[in-house]
Amino acid sequence: MLTNNQPKAIMIVIGNEVLSGRTKDRNIGWVAEKLNSIGINLIEARIIRDNQDVIISTIQELSKKVDYIFTSGGIGPTHDDITTVAIAKAFSIQVKKNKEALRRLEEHYKGTGIELNSARLKMADIPLGAKLIDNPVSAAPGFNVKNVYVMAGVPKIMQAMLDGVIKTIENGSKTISISIGCNIGEGNIAKGLEQIETLQKNIEIGCYPWFRAGLAGTNVVIRSMDKQ
Amino acid sequence: MLTNNQPKAIMIVIGNEVLSGRTKDRNIGWVAEKLNSIGINLIEARIIRDNQDVIISTIQELSKKVDYIFTSGGIGPTHDDITTVAIAKAFSIQVKKNKEALRRLEEHYKGTGIELNSARLKMADIPLGAKLIDNPVSAAPGFNVKNVYVMAGVPKIMQAMLDGVIKTIENGSKTISISIGCNIGEGNIAKGLEQIETLQKNIEIGCYPWFRAGLAGTNVVIRSMDKQ
Repeated sequence: MLTNNQPKAIMIVIGNEVLSGRTKDRNIGWVAEKLNSIGINLIEARIIRDNQDVIISTIQELSKKVDYIFTSGGIGPTHDDITTVAIAKAFSIQVKKNKEALRRLEEHYKGTGIELNSARLKMADIPLGAKLIDNPVSAAPGFNVKNVYVMAGVPKIMQAMLDGVIKTIENGSKTISISIGCNIGEGNIAKGLEQIETLQKNIEIGCYPWFRAGLAGTNVVIRSMDKQ
Repeated sequence: MLTNNQPKAIMIVIGNEVLSGRTKDRNIGWVAEKLNSIGINLIEARIIRDNQDVIISTIQELSKKVDYIFTSGGIGPTHDDITTVAIAKAFSIQVKKNKEALRRLEEHYKGTGIELNSARLKMADIPLGAKLIDNPVSAAPGFNVKNVYVMAGVPKIMQAMLDGVIKTIENGSKTISISIGCNIGEGNIAKGLEQIETLQKNIEIGCYPWFRAGLAGTNVVIRSMDKQ
Protein backbone atom coordinates (compact mmCIF):
# COMPACT_ATOMS: atom_id res chain seq x y z
CA MET A 1 0.00 0.00 0.00
CA LEU A 2 1.15 3.43 -0.90
CA THR A 3 2.16 5.30 2.23
CA ASN A 4 1.04 8.87 2.04
CA ASN A 5 0.03 11.75 4.24
CA GLN A 6 -3.36 12.28 2.63
CA PRO A 7 -6.34 12.70 4.98
CA LYS A 8 -8.10 9.34 5.45
CA ALA A 9 -11.82 8.71 5.09
CA ILE A 10 -14.37 5.93 5.50
CA MET A 11 -17.77 5.86 3.76
CA ILE A 12 -20.77 4.27 5.49
CA VAL A 13 -23.94 3.50 3.54
CA ILE A 14 -26.90 2.99 5.86
CA GLY A 15 -29.86 1.03 4.49
CA ASN A 16 -31.56 -2.36 4.67
CA GLU A 17 -32.67 -1.92 1.05
CA VAL A 18 -29.05 -2.09 -0.12
CA LEU A 19 -28.29 -5.24 1.93
CA SER A 20 -31.41 -6.99 0.61
CA GLY A 21 -30.25 -6.27 -2.94
CA ARG A 22 -33.41 -4.31 -3.74
CA THR A 23 -31.44 -1.09 -4.23
CA LYS A 24 -27.98 -1.20 -5.84
CA ASP A 25 -25.62 1.22 -4.13
CA ARG A 26 -24.23 3.90 -6.40
CA ASN A 27 -22.99 6.25 -3.68
CA ILE A 28 -19.75 4.49 -2.69
CA GLY A 29 -18.31 4.61 -6.22
CA TRP A 30 -19.31 8.25 -6.59
CA VAL A 31 -17.78 9.30 -3.25
CA ALA A 32 -14.65 7.21 -3.92
CA GLU A 33 -14.01 8.94 -7.22
CA LYS A 34 -14.66 12.46 -5.82
CA LEU A 35 -12.42 11.92 -2.79
CA ASN A 36 -9.67 10.46 -4.93
CA SER A 37 -9.84 13.54 -7.18
CA ILE A 38 -9.23 15.89 -4.24
CA GLY A 39 -6.52 13.84 -2.55
CA ILE A 40 -8.51 12.20 0.24
CA ASN A 41 -7.71 8.54 0.77
CA LEU A 42 -10.84 6.36 1.13
CA ILE A 43 -9.50 3.43 3.13
CA GLU A 44 -12.74 1.50 3.65
CA ALA A 45 -16.45 1.51 2.85
CA ARG A 46 -19.25 -0.25 4.70
CA ILE A 47 -22.89 -0.93 4.08
CA ILE A 48 -24.78 -1.39 7.36
CA ARG A 49 -28.36 -1.92 8.49
CA ASP A 50 -30.93 0.66 9.64
CA ASN A 51 -30.35 -0.48 13.20
CA GLN A 52 -29.64 2.01 15.97
CA ASP A 53 -27.11 -0.13 17.89
CA VAL A 54 -25.23 -1.00 14.69
CA ILE A 55 -25.06 2.65 13.57
CA ILE A 56 -23.91 3.84 17.02
CA SER A 57 -21.15 1.25 17.40
CA THR A 58 -19.95 1.68 13.81
CA ILE A 59 -19.72 5.48 14.14
CA GLN A 60 -18.01 5.28 17.53
CA GLU A 61 -15.45 2.77 16.24
CA LEU A 62 -14.67 4.33 12.86
CA SER A 63 -14.78 8.07 13.66
CA LYS A 64 -11.68 7.58 15.84
CA LYS A 65 -9.79 5.83 13.02
CA VAL A 66 -9.89 8.41 10.23
CA ASP A 67 -10.10 12.13 9.47
CA TYR A 68 -13.50 12.01 7.80
CA ILE A 69 -16.57 9.78 7.90
CA PHE A 70 -19.16 10.19 5.16
CA THR A 71 -22.57 8.55 5.53
CA SER A 72 -25.48 8.22 3.13
CA GLY A 73 -29.03 7.12 3.87
CA GLY A 74 -31.61 7.23 6.63
CA ILE A 75 -32.29 10.97 7.05
CA GLY A 76 -35.72 11.14 5.39
CA PRO A 77 -39.16 11.58 7.00
CA THR A 78 -40.19 7.96 7.60
CA HIS A 79 -39.94 5.72 10.66
CA ASP A 80 -37.07 3.72 9.12
CA ASP A 81 -34.98 6.91 8.87
CA ILE A 82 -33.05 6.64 12.13
CA THR A 83 -29.58 7.84 11.13
CA THR A 84 -29.85 11.32 12.73
CA VAL A 85 -30.86 10.06 16.16
CA ALA A 86 -28.33 7.21 16.09
CA ILE A 87 -25.41 9.46 15.15
CA ALA A 88 -26.35 12.00 17.83
CA LYS A 89 -26.45 9.16 20.38
CA ALA A 90 -23.04 7.92 19.21
CA PHE A 91 -21.63 11.26 20.41
CA SER A 92 -24.06 11.71 23.36
CA ILE A 93 -25.52 14.83 21.75
CA GLN A 94 -29.19 15.81 21.89
CA VAL A 95 -31.32 16.17 18.78
CA LYS A 96 -33.44 19.35 18.53
CA LYS A 97 -35.51 21.13 15.89
CA ASN A 98 -33.00 23.28 14.01
CA LYS A 99 -34.41 26.74 13.18
CA GLU A 100 -32.51 27.16 9.93
CA ALA A 101 -33.42 23.66 8.76
CA LEU A 102 -37.05 24.40 9.61
CA ARG A 103 -36.91 27.68 7.68
CA ARG A 104 -35.55 25.86 4.60
CA LEU A 105 -38.27 23.21 4.76
CA GLU A 106 -41.01 25.85 5.17
CA GLU A 107 -39.67 27.79 2.20
CA HIS A 108 -39.36 24.64 0.09
CA TYR A 109 -42.90 23.38 0.74
CA LYS A 110 -44.62 26.83 0.70
CA GLY A 111 -47.19 27.00 -2.07
CA THR A 112 -46.61 23.41 -3.22
CA GLY A 113 -49.77 22.05 -1.62
CA ILE A 114 -47.58 19.56 0.25
CA GLU A 115 -48.21 19.71 3.96
CA LEU A 116 -45.19 20.19 6.23
CA ASN A 117 -46.57 17.57 8.62
CA SER A 118 -44.90 16.00 11.66
CA ALA A 119 -43.14 13.36 9.54
CA ARG A 120 -41.57 15.98 7.24
CA LEU A 121 -40.78 18.21 10.24
CA LYS A 122 -38.62 15.34 11.51
CA MET A 123 -36.16 16.34 8.78
CA ALA A 124 -35.47 19.55 10.76
CA ASP A 125 -34.28 17.46 13.72
CA ILE A 126 -30.52 18.01 13.86
CA PRO A 127 -27.95 17.19 16.57
CA LEU A 128 -27.20 20.29 18.70
CA GLY A 129 -24.17 22.19 17.42
CA ALA A 130 -24.04 20.36 14.08
CA LYS A 131 -23.41 22.36 10.90
CA LEU A 132 -26.02 21.98 8.17
CA ILE A 133 -25.11 20.47 4.80
CA ASP A 134 -27.02 22.21 1.98
CA ASN A 135 -29.52 20.22 -0.06
CA PRO A 136 -30.17 22.14 -3.30
CA VAL A 137 -32.43 19.33 -4.57
CA SER A 138 -35.11 18.92 -1.90
CA ALA A 139 -34.14 21.38 0.89
CA ALA A 140 -34.00 18.93 3.85
CA PRO A 141 -30.36 19.35 4.95
CA GLY A 142 -27.70 16.87 5.94
CA PHE A 143 -25.37 17.77 8.76
CA ASN A 144 -21.81 17.62 9.98
CA VAL A 145 -21.10 16.68 13.58
CA LYS A 146 -17.51 16.09 14.78
CA ASN A 147 -15.76 14.48 11.78
CA VAL A 148 -18.95 12.82 10.46
CA TYR A 149 -20.72 14.15 7.33
CA VAL A 150 -24.30 12.85 7.18
CA MET A 151 -25.89 12.89 3.73
CA ALA A 152 -29.04 11.60 2.04
CA GLY A 153 -29.27 8.19 0.37
CA VAL A 154 -30.93 9.26 -2.89
CA PRO A 155 -27.94 9.54 -5.27
CA LYS A 156 -28.72 12.91 -6.83
CA ILE A 157 -29.27 14.50 -3.41
CA MET A 158 -26.14 12.85 -1.98
CA GLN A 159 -24.09 14.07 -4.95
CA ALA A 160 -25.32 17.65 -4.53
CA MET A 161 -24.58 17.52 -0.79
CA LEU A 162 -21.10 16.12 -1.38
CA ASP A 163 -20.29 18.95 -3.81
CA GLY A 164 -21.00 21.36 -0.96
CA VAL A 165 -19.10 19.34 1.64
CA ILE A 166 -15.87 18.99 -0.32
CA LYS A 167 -15.57 22.78 -0.54
CA THR A 168 -15.39 22.93 3.26
CA ILE A 169 -12.89 20.16 4.05
CA GLU A 170 -9.15 20.00 3.84
CA ASN A 171 -7.91 18.37 0.65
CA GLY A 172 -4.76 16.32 0.43
CA SER A 173 -2.01 16.09 -2.14
CA LYS A 174 -3.35 14.44 -5.22
CA THR A 175 -2.34 10.93 -6.04
CA ILE A 176 -1.08 10.81 -9.61
CA SER A 177 -2.41 7.83 -11.50
CA ILE A 178 -1.36 6.54 -14.91
CA SER A 179 -3.30 3.75 -16.58
CA ILE A 180 -1.70 1.68 -19.32
CA GLY A 181 -3.84 -0.80 -21.23
CA CYS A 182 -2.29 -3.73 -23.09
CA ASN A 183 -3.54 -6.92 -24.70
CA ILE A 184 -1.21 -9.12 -22.67
CA GLY A 185 -2.70 -11.41 -20.02
CA GLU A 186 -1.92 -10.27 -16.47
CA GLY A 187 -0.16 -13.57 -15.81
CA ASN A 188 2.53 -12.66 -18.38
CA ILE A 189 3.51 -9.35 -16.81
CA ALA A 190 2.95 -10.20 -13.14
CA LYS A 191 6.54 -11.06 -12.30
CA GLY A 192 8.12 -8.03 -13.94
CA LEU A 193 5.67 -5.65 -12.29
CA GLU A 194 6.31 -7.20 -8.88
CA GLN A 195 10.05 -6.57 -9.35
CA ILE A 196 9.39 -2.94 -10.31
CA GLU A 197 7.18 -2.34 -7.27
CA THR A 198 9.78 -3.92 -4.99
CA LEU A 199 12.46 -1.56 -6.31
CA GLN A 200 10.28 1.57 -6.41
CA LYS A 201 8.90 2.02 -2.90
CA ASN A 202 6.99 5.22 -3.74
CA ILE A 203 4.66 3.67 -6.30
CA GLU A 204 1.74 1.28 -6.14
CA ILE A 205 0.94 -0.91 -9.14
CA GLY A 206 -2.48 -2.46 -9.67
CA CYS A 207 -3.31 -5.00 -12.38
CA TYR A 208 -6.88 -5.28 -13.64
CA PRO A 209 -7.66 -7.93 -16.23
CA TRP A 210 -10.18 -7.19 -18.97
CA PHE A 211 -12.03 -9.49 -21.33
CA ARG A 212 -13.95 -8.41 -24.39
CA ALA A 213 -15.04 -9.98 -27.65
CA GLY A 214 -12.87 -13.02 -27.07
CA LEU A 215 -9.76 -10.96 -26.28
CA ALA A 216 -8.06 -10.62 -22.93
CA GLY A 217 -5.64 -8.07 -21.60
CA THR A 218 -4.59 -6.05 -18.60
CA ASN A 219 -4.89 -2.46 -17.47
CA VAL A 220 -1.84 -1.59 -15.40
CA VAL A 221 -2.44 1.34 -13.06
CA ILE A 222 0.55 3.04 -11.46
CA ARG A 223 -0.22 5.38 -8.57
CA SER A 224 2.20 7.66 -6.78
CA MET A 225 2.35 10.94 -4.86
CA ASP A 226 5.43 11.86 -6.91
CA LYS A 227 5.04 12.57 -10.63
CA GLN A 228 8.64 11.48 -11.39
CA MET B 1 -35.20 -4.89 12.18
CA LEU B 2 -37.01 -8.06 11.35
CA THR B 3 -35.99 -10.78 13.78
CA ASN B 4 -35.59 -14.04 11.99
CA ASN B 5 -33.67 -17.28 12.18
CA GLN B 6 -32.15 -17.03 8.72
CA PRO B 7 -28.42 -17.75 8.42
CA LYS B 8 -26.45 -14.49 8.52
CA ALA B 9 -23.75 -13.43 6.07
CA ILE B 10 -21.26 -10.62 5.49
CA MET B 11 -19.75 -9.75 2.10
CA ILE B 12 -16.19 -8.40 1.87
CA VAL B 13 -14.92 -6.84 -1.35
CA ILE B 14 -11.12 -6.67 -1.41
CA GLY B 15 -9.54 -4.15 -3.78
CA ASN B 16 -7.80 -0.77 -3.83
CA GLU B 17 -9.28 -0.12 -7.28
CA VAL B 18 -12.78 0.00 -5.78
CA LEU B 19 -11.75 2.40 -2.99
CA SER B 20 -10.03 4.73 -5.45
CA GLY B 21 -13.24 4.88 -7.49
CA ARG B 22 -11.51 3.49 -10.58
CA THR B 23 -13.66 0.35 -10.54
CA LYS B 24 -17.31 0.55 -9.50
CA ASP B 25 -18.27 -2.44 -7.40
CA ARG B 26 -21.06 -4.55 -8.86
CA ASN B 27 -20.50 -7.64 -6.73
CA ILE B 28 -22.19 -6.54 -3.49
CA GLY B 29 -25.54 -5.87 -5.16
CA TRP B 30 -25.36 -9.17 -7.03
CA VAL B 31 -24.52 -11.20 -3.92
CA ALA B 32 -27.14 -9.32 -1.86
CA GLU B 33 -29.89 -10.18 -4.31
CA LYS B 34 -28.84 -13.85 -4.64
CA LEU B 35 -28.58 -14.36 -0.88
CA ASN B 36 -31.92 -12.67 -0.30
CA SER B 37 -33.51 -15.01 -2.86
CA ILE B 38 -32.34 -18.11 -0.96
CA GLY B 39 -33.16 -16.86 2.54
CA ILE B 40 -29.71 -15.82 3.73
CA ASN B 41 -29.62 -12.51 5.60
CA LEU B 42 -26.78 -10.23 4.44
CA ILE B 43 -26.25 -8.06 7.53
CA GLU B 44 -23.26 -6.04 6.35
CA ALA B 45 -20.92 -5.47 3.42
CA ARG B 46 -17.43 -4.00 3.46
CA ILE B 47 -14.95 -2.83 0.87
CA ILE B 48 -11.39 -3.08 2.17
CA ARG B 49 -7.86 -2.52 0.86
CA ASP B 50 -5.42 -5.06 -0.62
CA ASN B 51 -3.50 -4.96 2.65
CA GLN B 52 -2.52 -8.15 4.45
CA ASP B 53 -3.05 -6.85 8.01
CA VAL B 54 -6.42 -5.35 7.11
CA ILE B 55 -7.63 -8.56 5.44
CA ILE B 56 -6.44 -10.74 8.34
CA SER B 57 -8.06 -8.63 11.08
CA THR B 58 -11.30 -8.20 9.11
CA ILE B 59 -11.63 -11.95 8.49
CA GLN B 60 -10.78 -12.83 12.09
CA GLU B 61 -13.32 -10.33 13.46
CA LEU B 62 -16.20 -11.01 11.07
CA SER B 63 -15.98 -14.79 10.60
CA LYS B 64 -16.95 -15.19 14.26
CA LYS B 65 -20.00 -12.98 13.90
CA VAL B 66 -21.95 -14.70 11.11
CA ASP B 67 -22.63 -18.04 9.45
CA TYR B 68 -21.06 -17.15 6.10
CA ILE B 69 -18.42 -14.74 4.83
CA PHE B 70 -18.21 -14.14 1.08
CA THR B 71 -15.21 -12.34 -0.38
CA SER B 72 -14.46 -11.10 -3.88
CA GLY B 73 -11.16 -9.90 -5.30
CA GLY B 74 -7.45 -10.47 -4.96
CA ILE B 75 -7.03 -14.10 -6.09
CA GLY B 76 -5.46 -13.50 -9.51
CA PRO B 77 -1.85 -14.01 -10.65
CA THR B 78 -0.34 -10.59 -9.91
CA HIS B 79 1.65 -9.27 -6.96
CA ASP B 80 -1.35 -7.23 -5.70
CA ASP B 81 -3.42 -10.44 -5.39
CA ILE B 82 -2.81 -11.23 -1.73
CA THR B 83 -6.20 -12.47 -0.56
CA THR B 84 -5.34 -16.20 -0.50
CA VAL B 85 -2.25 -15.79 1.68
CA ALA B 86 -3.97 -13.29 3.99
CA ILE B 87 -7.02 -15.49 4.57
CA ALA B 88 -4.85 -18.54 5.24
CA LYS B 89 -2.87 -16.48 7.78
CA ALA B 90 -6.11 -15.32 9.43
CA PHE B 91 -6.76 -18.98 10.31
CA SER B 92 -3.07 -19.96 10.77
CA ILE B 93 -3.27 -22.38 7.85
CA GLN B 94 -0.45 -23.01 5.37
CA VAL B 95 -0.84 -22.32 1.66
CA LYS B 96 0.31 -25.09 -0.71
CA LYS B 97 0.08 -25.90 -4.42
CA ASN B 98 -3.26 -27.69 -4.75
CA LYS B 99 -3.05 -30.66 -7.15
CA GLU B 100 -6.60 -30.40 -8.43
CA ALA B 101 -6.30 -26.63 -8.93
CA LEU B 102 -3.05 -27.22 -10.81
CA ARG B 103 -4.70 -29.86 -12.99
CA ARG B 104 -7.52 -27.43 -13.88
CA LEU B 105 -5.07 -24.67 -14.79
CA GLU B 106 -2.98 -27.04 -16.93
CA GLU B 107 -6.07 -28.26 -18.74
CA HIS B 108 -7.33 -24.69 -19.24
CA TYR B 109 -4.08 -23.31 -20.69
CA LYS B 110 -3.14 -26.44 -22.72
CA GLY B 111 -2.94 -25.62 -26.42
CA THR B 112 -3.75 -21.91 -25.92
CA GLY B 113 -0.19 -20.75 -26.40
CA ILE B 114 -0.44 -19.06 -23.00
CA GLU B 115 2.38 -20.11 -20.73
CA LEU B 116 1.46 -21.47 -17.31
CA ASN B 117 4.29 -19.45 -15.75
CA SER B 118 5.09 -18.93 -12.07
CA ALA B 119 2.64 -16.00 -11.79
CA ARG B 120 -0.26 -18.06 -13.15
CA LEU B 121 0.81 -21.07 -11.08
CA LYS B 122 0.23 -18.85 -8.02
CA MET B 123 -3.48 -19.34 -8.71
CA ALA B 124 -3.06 -23.02 -7.69
CA ASP B 125 -1.90 -21.92 -4.22
CA ILE B 126 -4.74 -22.85 -1.89
CA PRO B 127 -4.92 -23.04 1.92
CA LEU B 128 -4.45 -26.63 3.13
CA GLY B 129 -7.76 -28.42 3.62
CA ALA B 130 -9.81 -25.80 1.77
CA LYS B 131 -12.50 -26.91 -0.68
CA LEU B 132 -12.19 -25.58 -4.22
CA ILE B 133 -14.88 -23.34 -5.69
CA ASP B 134 -15.37 -24.06 -9.41
CA ASN B 135 -14.54 -21.38 -11.95
CA PRO B 136 -16.29 -22.30 -15.22
CA VAL B 137 -15.08 -19.04 -16.84
CA SER B 138 -11.30 -19.08 -16.48
CA ALA B 139 -10.51 -22.27 -14.49
CA ALA B 140 -8.52 -20.72 -11.60
CA PRO B 141 -10.65 -21.78 -8.62
CA GLY B 142 -11.82 -19.92 -5.56
CA PHE B 143 -11.91 -21.78 -2.26
CA ASN B 144 -13.86 -22.30 0.93
CA VAL B 145 -12.02 -22.42 4.23
CA LYS B 146 -13.96 -22.52 7.55
CA ASN B 147 -17.04 -20.35 6.90
CA VAL B 148 -15.28 -18.11 4.36
CA TYR B 149 -16.02 -18.38 0.62
CA VAL B 150 -13.26 -16.74 -1.42
CA MET B 151 -14.23 -15.70 -4.94
CA ALA B 152 -12.74 -13.71 -7.83
CA GLY B 153 -13.32 -9.98 -8.28
CA VAL B 154 -14.20 -9.99 -11.99
CA PRO B 155 -18.03 -9.89 -11.90
CA LYS B 156 -18.75 -12.65 -14.43
CA ILE B 157 -16.30 -15.02 -12.70
CA MET B 158 -17.65 -14.11 -9.24
CA GLN B 159 -21.22 -14.72 -10.43
CA ALA B 160 -20.34 -18.14 -11.84
CA MET B 161 -18.52 -19.07 -8.62
CA LEU B 162 -21.45 -17.91 -6.47
CA ASP B 163 -23.88 -20.06 -8.47
CA GLY B 164 -21.75 -23.06 -7.49
CA VAL B 165 -21.38 -21.99 -3.87
CA ILE B 166 -25.07 -21.46 -3.16
CA LYS B 167 -25.81 -25.06 -4.14
CA THR B 168 -23.56 -26.23 -1.29
CA ILE B 169 -24.70 -24.04 1.59
CA GLU B 170 -27.69 -24.19 3.85
CA ASN B 171 -30.50 -21.90 2.74
CA GLY B 172 -32.86 -20.19 5.14
CA SER B 173 -36.58 -19.55 5.10
CA LYS B 174 -37.36 -17.01 2.45
CA THR B 175 -38.33 -13.52 3.43
CA ILE B 176 -41.54 -12.57 1.68
CA SER B 177 -41.45 -9.09 0.24
CA ILE B 178 -44.28 -7.04 -1.22
CA SER B 179 -43.57 -3.74 -2.92
CA ILE B 180 -46.34 -1.16 -3.36
CA GLY B 181 -45.64 1.93 -5.44
CA CYS B 182 -47.73 5.08 -5.03
CA ASN B 183 -47.47 8.68 -6.17
CA ILE B 184 -47.77 10.04 -2.62
CA GLY B 185 -44.73 11.66 -1.03
CA GLU B 186 -43.20 9.56 1.74
CA GLY B 187 -43.81 12.39 4.22
CA ASN B 188 -47.58 11.94 3.81
CA ILE B 189 -47.67 8.26 4.69
CA ALA B 190 -44.84 8.12 7.22
CA LYS B 191 -46.96 8.40 10.36
CA GLY B 192 -49.52 5.77 9.34
CA LEU B 193 -46.83 3.27 8.36
CA GLU B 194 -45.02 3.79 11.63
CA GLN B 195 -48.24 2.95 13.49
CA ILE B 196 -48.71 -0.21 11.42
CA GLU B 197 -45.17 -1.39 12.06
CA THR B 198 -45.54 -0.73 15.81
CA LEU B 199 -48.70 -2.88 15.91
CA GLN B 200 -47.38 -5.68 13.63
CA LYS B 201 -44.13 -6.88 15.18
CA ASN B 202 -43.50 -9.54 12.54
CA ILE B 203 -43.17 -7.16 9.62
CA GLU B 204 -40.60 -4.63 8.51
CA ILE B 205 -41.66 -1.67 6.40
CA GLY B 206 -39.23 0.30 4.26
CA CYS B 207 -40.05 3.53 2.42
CA TYR B 208 -38.07 4.50 -0.67
CA PRO B 209 -38.86 7.80 -2.35
CA TRP B 210 -38.73 8.07 -6.13
CA PHE B 211 -38.58 11.09 -8.40
CA ARG B 212 -39.14 11.05 -12.13
CA ALA B 213 -40.23 13.52 -14.78
CA GLY B 214 -41.25 16.08 -12.18
CA LEU B 215 -43.32 13.59 -10.18
CA ALA B 216 -42.53 12.21 -6.75
CA GLY B 217 -43.78 9.14 -4.94
CA THR B 218 -42.89 6.33 -2.62
CA ASN B 219 -42.28 2.62 -2.94
CA VAL B 220 -43.41 0.93 0.26
CA VAL B 221 -41.77 -2.44 0.81
CA ILE B 222 -43.22 -4.79 3.40
CA ARG B 223 -41.04 -7.72 4.40
CA SER B 224 -41.98 -10.63 6.63
CA MET B 225 -41.20 -14.30 7.24
CA ASP B 226 -44.95 -14.94 7.45
CA LYS B 227 -47.06 -14.57 4.31
CA GLN B 228 -50.19 -13.65 6.29
